[in-house]
Amino acid sequence: MLYEISEKAIQLENQGKKIIKFNLGDPDLPTPPEIVEAAYQAIKQGKTKYSSAAGEKALREELANIHGVSKDNVVVTTGSKWAIYSLFSLLLKKGDNIVVPSPHWTSYELAAKQVGVEFRVLKRDIESDWKIDVEKFDQLIDKNTRLVLLNSPNNPTSKVIDDKTFTELVKIANDKGAKVLSDEVYADISFVKPKRILEFGTDNMLVDGFSKSFLMTGWRIGYAVVEKELAKKMVKLNQITTTCVPAFIQYGALKGLEDRKRIADNIRTTFKVRADAAYSVLSNTKMKFSKPDAPFYLFPKVDGLDSERFALDLLDSGVAVAPGTAFGDYREYFRIALTRPEDEIKEGLEKLCEALP
Amino acid sequence: MLYEISEKAIQLENQGKKIIKFNLGDPDLPTPPEIVEAAYQAIKQGKTKYSSAAGEKALREELANIHGVSKDNVVVTTGSKWAIYSLFSLLLKKGDNIVVPSPHWTSYELAAKQVGVEFRVLKRDIESDWKIDVEKFDQLIDKNTRLVLLNSPNNPTSKVIDDKTFTELVKIANDKGAKVLSDEVYADISFVKPKRILEFGTDNMLVDGFSKSFLMTGWRIGYAVVEKELAKKMVKLNQITTTCVPAFIQYGALKGLEDRKRIADNIRTTFKVRADAAYSVLSNTKMKFSKPDAPFYLFPKVDGLDSERFALDLLDSGVAVAPGTAFGDYREYFRIALTRPEDEIKEGLEKLCEALP
Repeated sequence: MLYEISEKAIQLENQGKKIIKFNLGDPDLPTPPEIVEAAYQAIKQGKTKYSSAAGEKALREELANIHGVSKDNVVVTTGSKWAIYSLFSLLLKKGDNIVVPSPHWTSYELAAKQVGVEFRVLKRDIESDWKIDVEKFDQLIDKNTRLVLLNSPNNPTSKVIDDKTFTELVKIANDKGAKVLSDEVYADISFVKPKRILEFGTDNMLVDGFSKSFLMTGWRIGYAVVEKELAKKMVKLNQITTTCVPAFIQYGALKGLEDRKRIADNIRTTFKVRADAAYSVLSNTKMKFSKPDAPFYLFPKVDGLDSERFALDLLDSGVAVAPGTAFGDYREYFRIALTRPEDEIKEGLEKLCEALP
Repeated sequence: MLYEISEKAIQLENQGKKIIKFNLGDPDLPTPPEIVEAAYQAIKQGKTKYSSAAGEKALREELANIHGVSKDNVVVTTGSKWAIYSLFSLLLKKGDNIVVPSPHWTSYELAAKQVGVEFRVLKRDIESDWKIDVEKFDQLIDKNTRLVLLNSPNNPTSKVIDDKTFTELVKIANDKGAKVLSDEVYADISFVKPKRILEFGTDNMLVDGFSKSFLMTGWRIGYAVVEKELAKKMVKLNQITTTCVPAFIQYGALKGLEDRKRIADNIRTTFKVRADAAYSVLSNTKMKFSKPDAPFYLFPKVDGLDSERFALDLLDSGVAVAPGTAFGDYREYFRIALTRPEDEIKEGLEKLCEALP
C-alpha cells in the first residue's frame, strides 16, 4: 500500500499535478557538498574498481574508532536495509521467530516473510505514549526467538525508547538466548539522546547507515557492527550478492564522518523547526499524536479512520501520506514525513486537516 | 582460494612488493570520462534520493529499446551478480537443481549453495576445445532442474558457445521445463559474435551489466531482462534488500549507452592486442590453451599441476593468478586475467613461465 501511494503520487506528478509528498522518509535537503566533492575526487582517482566486500579499510577503521570496536567488527553494506536482510538470511531458519515492538518499519516484516520466519509484534499505542510493556515483551519471547529487533528512534513514531526500558529489553532478550539487532539509523540526528546497543557489547548487533544522518538516501550505504565471526559471514554473503559498496561512495561517507557533528546539528535544527511548526498546526485538531523525539516523522491517530482510504483520497487534495497499515496493525494512524520545506509542511498539513473525515 | 590469493596479493603490495595482478577480472582501464561526468552532473542535479527499485525509467527504456523488449521486462540491479542471486532466490527451492557447463564463474556455485540447491556441472576440457557434449547435457537435466545457466563468452575460458550448440541447449532445457539464465556480461565486447538468449524470447532470462563493457566494475550496476511477472518479483525483492542502484550511477550508464559501440570497440581493440601478446609468449611453452574468443581471460592447463600450490608460490615471484579450482574441478588449470597493461602482461607471463614446475 505504501508503494501504491508512492507510485500514484509519481503518476499524478507526471500529469502535472503538484503533490506535497509526506509519504517518504527521504529528506528534501541535498547531500552535503563536501561529501559530493569527496566522492567525485575519489572517482577521478580511480576508486571505481572492485573493492573489499567488507568495506574500505579507512572507513571501517573510522567507524570502529567511533564505536569503540575493532574494524573486524564492521561491515559496510549496500544500505542499512541490506545489513538487516543479510543478518536475517544468515541467522534465521524456518521455525525461528523475530520479536519486534510495533509500529515498525515496513521492510522488517517483508524481509522476515521473504526469509520465511515468524514476525511477532508487540503492539503499542499512542494512548500509552508508545510505552513498551516489558512484561508482554518477555512473554512473546520463546525458545525459537532468535532475534529481537529494536529501532530507537522509531520509524514511524519518532519516539525514543527510554534508557531503563531499553536496558531491560536487552537483558530479557539476551537472558533468553535471543540477540538484539538494533537499527539506529535515526540515532545520530535524534533530538533526545537514545540508548545505544553497543553499550552492551558486540554480542548484539548494530545496524546503522548514512542515509538519514548524511542525507545520502539514494547513495545506498550503511553498515553493521557485529561479532567478528558473524562479520566474516556477512562479508562472504556480500561477495556473492552485492560485491561491495562503490569505493568512491565510501570515501564520500568517510569525508562526512570528519564533520559528522556539524552535519547532524544542521539536520536536527532544520527538523526541530519543522516538527514545531507541524505540532502547532496539528495541536488544534482531533488528531492524537505525541511530540517527536527525533526527525522525521509524526504518526497521528484519528479514531475510526480508515487510513488506506484516507491516504488514497488525500492524493486528490495534493498531499501524500503513508497509511498506518504499512507499519503494522494501525489502521487509524498515518505517517507524515516532514521531509519537505517548512512552507510546504504548513500548506500540506492544512490541506490534510481539511480533508480529515 | 580465489579470495585468499587476492587478500595475500594485497598484503604483499601493502608491504611494498610489486605484484602483477592477473587474478582479478577487473580491467586496469578507467571508466570512460563521459560516464564519470554524467554521473557527477546527476549528483549535482540532486539525483541522490531514493529512486525506483526497478531502475530509472530512462535507463530501462533505453535498455528495452536495445534488446527489443518492453521496459517492464527490464530490472536494474546492484551488479549482474545481484540479478543472478535474486533470480536464484526467487525461482529455486530446496530439492531443485541448476545445470551449468563448467568451468564456471565462482559466484554461481557459491550462490547456489547459499540458496540451498544442487549445482550440477557439465564438465568440459581443453582437449576437446571446450566443446559442450549436448547428449551429456541432456542427461543431466531432470524434473528438478529449474535453471540452466549459460555464460557465453565464458569466464574463465573466454570461449563462445557456437550458435548451433547454444540453440540446442536452449531447446533441450525448455523442452524439459527448465529455463535458461544467460549471463552475457562479456557479450558486447566479445571478439566473436555470440548467440543471445533474447533471440528465444523473454521466457528465458538475460543477465547483463556494465562492469565489463563500460569498465564500471566498482560502480555495481547490472540488469536483468525477464518476463514481466518475474520482473515485478525482482523489483519487490529489491525493495526489501538493495532498494535501488544510485540514480546518478544509472545516469552514468545511460550516457555510456549513447556511445556503447565506440566504448566496446576500444575495449575489444585493447584486449585483442593483449590476447595476441599473451598468445605469443605462451605458445612456446608446455601449457595447453585455446585462443580466446573474448576479453579478458586465458585458462591454460599444465598436466599434473597443482594450481592452488602454484598460485600461492607464484605470488613470491610477484605474479597473481586464479587457481583453476575456483572454477570447478580444474586443478591442473589456472586463470590469467589480461587486465594489466601490455608491458606488465609480457613481464608477468615471463615470470609465470619461469615459475612453472
